Amino acid sequence: MTNLKSPIFTDLYELTMMQVWFQNDMARTEACFDLFFRKCPFEGEYVIAAGIDDALSFLKDAYFSEDEISYLKSLDLFEETFLELLSTWKFDGSVYAIKEGSVVFPNEPVMRIHGPIISCQLIETALLNIVNFESLIATKSSRVCSVAGWDNVLEFGARRAQGPDGALSASKSAYIGGCAATSNLEAGMKFGIPVRGTHAHSFVMSFDSEIEAFRRYADSYPDATILLIDTYNTINYGLPHAILVGKEMERSGNTLAGVRLDSGDLLSLSKETRRKLDEAGMYSTKIVASGDLDEYIISTLTENKAPIDTYGVGTRLVTGFDSPALAGVYKLSALKNPDGTVSMRLKITNGEDKQSLPGIKQIYRTYDEKSGIMLFDTIDLESKVIPGVNTVPLLSLVLSDGVLTSDFRNVHEIREDFIQVFNKIPEKVRRISDPEQYLVKIGSTLKSAQKELQEQYISRQKK
Amino acid sequence: MTNLKSPIFTDLYELTMMQVWFQNDMARTEACFDLFFRKCPFEGEYVIAAGIDDALSFLKDAYFSEDEISYLKSLDLFEETFLELLSTWKFDGSVYAIKEGSVVFPNEPVMRIHGPIISCQLIETALLNIVNFESLIATKSSRVCSVAGWDNVLEFGARRAQGPDGALSASKSAYIGGCAATSNLEAGMKFGIPVRGTHAHSFVMSFDSEIEAFRRYADSYPDATILLIDTYNTINYGLPHAILVGKEMERSGNTLAGVRLDSGDLLSLSKETRRKLDEAGMYSTKIVASGDLDEYIISTLTENKAPIDTYGVGTRLVTGFDSPALAGVYKLSALKNPDGTVSMRLKITNGEDKQSLPGIKQIYRTYDEKSGIMLFDTIDLESKVIPGVNTVPLLSLVLSDGVLTSDFRNVHEIREDFIQVFNKIPEKVRRISDPEQYLVKIGSTLKSAQKELQEQYISRQKK
Repeated sequence: MTNLKSPIFTDLYELTMMQVWFQNDMARTEACFDLFFRKCPFEGEYVIAAGIDDALSFLKDAYFSEDEISYLKSLDLFEETFLELLSTWKFDGSVYAIKEGSVVFPNEPVMRIHGPIISCQLIETALLNIVNFESLIATKSSRVCSVAGWDNVLEFGARRAQGPDGALSASKSAYIGGCAATSNLEAGMKFGIPVRGTHAHSFVMSFDSEIEAFRRYADSYPDATILLIDTYNTINYGLPHAILVGKEMERSGNTLAGVRLDSGDLLSLSKETRRKLDEAGMYSTKIVASGDLDEYIISTLTENKAPIDTYGVGTRLVTGFDSPALAGVYKLSALKNPDGTVSMRLKITNGEDKQSLPGIKQIYRTYDEKSGIMLFDTIDLESKVIPGVNTVPLLSLVLSDGVLTSDFRNVHEIREDFIQVFNKIPEKVRRISDPEQYLVKIGSTLKSAQKELQEQYISRQKK
Repeated sequence: MTNLKSPIFTDLYELTMMQVWFQNDMARTEACFDLFFRKCPFEGEYVIAAGIDDALSFLKDAYFSEDEISYLKSLDLFEETFLELLSTWKFDGSVYAIKEGSVVFPNEPVMRIHGPIISCQLIETALLNIVNFESLIATKSSRVCSVAGWDNVLEFGARRAQGPDGALSASKSAYIGGCAATSNLEAGMKFGIPVRGTHAHSFVMSFDSEIEAFRRYADSYPDATILLIDTYNTINYGLPHAILVGKEMERSGNTLAGVRLDSGDLLSLSKETRRKLDEAGMYSTKIVASGDLDEYIISTLTENKAPIDTYGVGTRLVTGFDSPALAGVYKLSALKNPDGTVSMRLKITNGEDKQSLPGIKQIYRTYDEKSGIMLFDTIDLESKVIPGVNTVPLLSLVLSDGVLTSDFRNVHEIREDFIQVFNKIPEKVRRISDPEQYLVKIGSTLKSAQKELQEQYISRQKK
């Protein structure tokens, strides 16, 4: 993500609601909001949470500029005293969150925001946007990379991502979710992600012949040449030309690092390519495949033993192609009363399916003692203490009164931790096809609080 | 789009190819590249081109910073003289493009880039990213708004868009493609797009009762209150409460502007809501509907005469949900030889489907003389003069040796022009279901050039 600094990236209604609270002396009312997902993307059964650190970074620094206040004034919706409040606004609340790169499940609070209700409401749009998108791509990446192998996927999506900044966030989230490198130099520079690349068809077309193009590329990068062999015809021209150049490289003591297949039937082409490379004794020349790949295509290729070493994955990774939005929501769960007691809040909405979980909650994760594999989660009120050595709470204080409680980990550490976490998800939950639902229990204290509240609410609206 | 200024937003391979050309004295070879789409998104038969102006703005201003050059140096791939060239690089080529907000069809060059091959290659990633995404959303917006009515769609997608900048580009492109307003204040401020909003469930939940929440909102915005009525139960509580507050507003000489439905069966709920509002004499209170809407759902609602005045459309608009990437490509079409003649270039790739159109091309659009409706397009070599008073060329010079040839139109002018353009697309081509393909002819001069080249190429690779 580029450095989002301004809360002007928000929906108008956040500000109109804030002004009503302000005018009714509720601006400083302490609230608690939960950010959570209702459904997993990609017909899967888990979400890899990402964007938490970017969201915290935004909360830590966000303020309105003078120009922004002038713009808000020009809308003729806000009174002067409210605009004055905005002009000095800083997020002064606290946040409990799970770790960047953790696995989460539907209805589990990924972030719990505490603070004056106006501050909590203002940041809704930015928090949802950041966490929704980065989690979506980290989740997609985990699916692709777990099938292809953690060191075998290059993210090649910059040209098809949703905007330049979408590309940057996608490269970062894809790396956190398991990719080994990116083609996007901006992501390489900003985050230190390894960068990789080959060459394009235009490069071949710019020379009078394919072999001339291959020779010139090999001359420039004797240690790192990967030749794209499908500009004219893969098997008849591209591959024999690459082998010829590979043999020429050998004579100067170098090795052709790889060839890239970007179209056609990758299974048969890769087998034929491997066979011909091996016949030529070029055992260490790798095969890179690209072209509208995703976890399903890669899975079919690996199941059929396609001799592909590395996958370049673009469009379908960086846009989350088959589920391009994660429907994270942000719901009020509790308010502090003037007397200091906490009043839990619930949304009912015509029925059960969109009902929220009230109160200040914690997620407790229970692991199998021997294998370390995750067994089940329990969402319950935070005040409820869950015993057991194999059960750990997932939400911890990360921002206290607007100040970070610790430094962020870098993307390499997050990626490594993520891979550890991923291996603790039961295989049947994380597989890409027909996964089983992970057990998330609603704790008994929370369940009875929810029921009681539901009855109270209904009776109160009837009055 | 945020102000993309740096060509570091590019794929590594652009730079490795550039260096090979540089090392082989080809850096200043004049090239021509086409940016075009192969396929229309959303199972449609047209694309609304957008992002052209943002792409030009990038080309006009882009340069590498010192930090970026240092980063590139740290990769240990580039020689000093090449990095020096990059450190003073400015795009000094020329661009022919269609107008922002025009309609285009598969294989038609949306932008034609002329310049030194290294400059043309460097900008590929940014140009594709910008034009792909903005065109995708403008196209989706045109589908949604043409079904709902041009003044009836509010874009509410900020929280589900692909990153904060994805949201900003999406708001702009959605507006160009027909939306009347956005909820995104940043887009309102940057582009002057009208902003609209209602309130959230959390607002209702923050008060002891729904009616209390409604009263406080109406007190603050007597001219502009739209009440969200589904927090507890739409028909039993939300609607009667809104009517009660609406009647209270009438007594102080005000009118409830609207109510919003955000869940449930929108057809039956909107009918019941309209009936009850009318019974109460609240004829001018509008109904706003939201919640995972798209052109298909809206079409079903309008066909069934749902009395919905305004649609708030989010996720499925700003991500292009059902086709979240436009597969624009960028292909070399011609090179200038040292003797000044032009050599056309062609990509063949194992068969016909991905074959490119060679040479320097123009799109000619022919309209029906009487109705002004579009009849067909012809892609041909630019040198070929197409006669006829009802045929116009679509590509014009917009950037000449790195300098803009005219100022950009603002988003309001682009949106108005777009609606005129849209009405000239044959109805059967622009309808959302089972549209017919628009006729794009390949001119005879181009066709014979392509055929000749194909034979030449094949024979040349065989050598």
